[in-house]
Amino acid sequence: MKKRTLETCFSPAMYEPERHKGSLVVIIDILRATSAICSAFANGVKSIIPVESIGEARDYKNRGYLVAAERDGIILDFADFGNSPFNFTRDKIEGKTIVYSTTNGTGIIKLASSAAYIVIGSFLNITALTRWLLEKDQDVILFCAGWKNRFNLEDSVCAGAFAEKLMNSRQFDTICDSTKAAIDLWGLAKDDLRRYIDKAAHRSRLKANGLDDCIDFCLTPDYTDKIPVIKDGVLVDNIL
Amino acid sequence: MKKRTLETCFSPAMYEPERHKGSLVVIIDILRATSAICSAFANGVKSIIPVESIGEARDYKNRGYLVAAERDGIILDFADFGNSPFNFTRDKIEGKTIVYSTTNGTGIIKLASSAAYIVIGSFLNITALTRWLLEKDQDVILFCAGWKNRFNLEDSVCAGAFAEKLMNSRQFDTICDSTKAAIDLWGLAKDDLRRYIDKAAHRSRLKANGLDDCIDFCLTPDYTDKIPVIKDGVLVDNIL
Repeated sequence: MKKRTLETCFSPAMYEPERHKGSLVVIIDILRATSAICSAFANGVKSIIPVESIGEARDYKNRGYLVAAERDGIILDFADFGNSPFNFTRDKIEGKTIVYSTTNGTGIIKLASSAAYIVIGSFLNITALTRWLLEKDQDVILFCAGWKNRFNLEDSVCAGAFAEKLMNSRQFDTICDSTKAAIDLWGLAKDDLRRYIDKAAHRSRLKANGLDDCIDFCLTPDYTDKIPVIKDGVLVDNIL
Repeated sequence: MKKRTLETCFSPAMYEPERHKGSLVVIIDILRATSAICSAFANGVKSIIPVESIGEARDYKNRGYLVAAERDGIILDFADFGNSPFNFTRDKIEGKTIVYSTTNGTGIIKLASSAAYIVIGSFLNITALTRWLLEKDQDVILFCAGWKNRFNLEDSVCAGAFAEKLMNSRQFDTICDSTKAAIDLWGLAKDDLRRYIDKAAHRSRLKANGLDDCIDFCLTPDYTDKIPVIKDGVLVDNIL
């Protein structure tokens, strides 16, 4: 039986939309966008509208939506909250549609729009999402958000954790060096993940802005079994 | 004393010419371009003219130059040889100027042209080049050629070997996650480098084309003390 192909992309700058047409794309931006999105679905959000520009986010705000929007970790002045997963509490968001704009994550969702499905991955939903991916039959690309088109450690390590699980299923082949490197980095990190992530540059950026209180939470495996999926441009819980 | 900054770039797609203006850029494309260039200088080549396009390479050939040119590991029909380091023997190249065009390496030299200096790095000249870098006072960027804009293992591991030496000098600081990942991958690879490189995708590509006979040679540390440097668009032995 022909195996499915697994690839990893370390940065939006390296993403090749043409090559990944028809694949399952897993977006990974664990500090903090994809962790926050998983957390929001765990807390009962109905749907999330991802927007790229600040202008779009402001328009939605003016139309009465709850808006989560930040740039470089700083909440925009008109927004209801930023993208800490701790903001998306059940009392604020249950049953609601919210609008979400981030530094990296939202642009990436647009970049991947030629894919068969775009799903949101983090440690918070790793086992449930892996199971979901194994039930499908498309190729998979683990798409790390990185930081301003650069490689980052935290997303690469999380991609490695997904890749290890997917490769262990024996459904996949990979000749992708990024996948092999990600698995190796995960191998180095997994025994003390928090210690490994502490050397990541973005961890220092969050600390500098007082936004690093959620890191342990973002590294928690299997907090939820939600599978946020893009459907007609909007994130909804897995309805496929 | 303010330390110098060390960064690593895993792919031309991620290179930021504006940010690296005035830096020392080390080009790393060990299978096989930068190893072949180091080997050519070890064997007495006078200078190497890097060209990007096949047309340029052909023009030089018509003007009587020795031309090394390949695409995807295959020698072009008009060229004198491809880019195996074994082609650059002393009897063919000593005292001569040769023209060199490759799949990845030549384009990268152009991309990095805003740098203070562009130097050619490989395991073959790692100790000598590290010493040279330590004598300068600019920031350093280790620029991996990768493969068609993608990350590759062999160049990243070599970058990690350079990075470890440079960081051990205590002259450098880095907040670059790519550098940290490269050092970690080098840490996994160094006890049995050939075994680690054997899982790289490009190793399979070379094998498929019968071009993998030079891999052990390309992994040989300190075969030469030559420092190929770009001077007025041409590679010469360190004259700085």
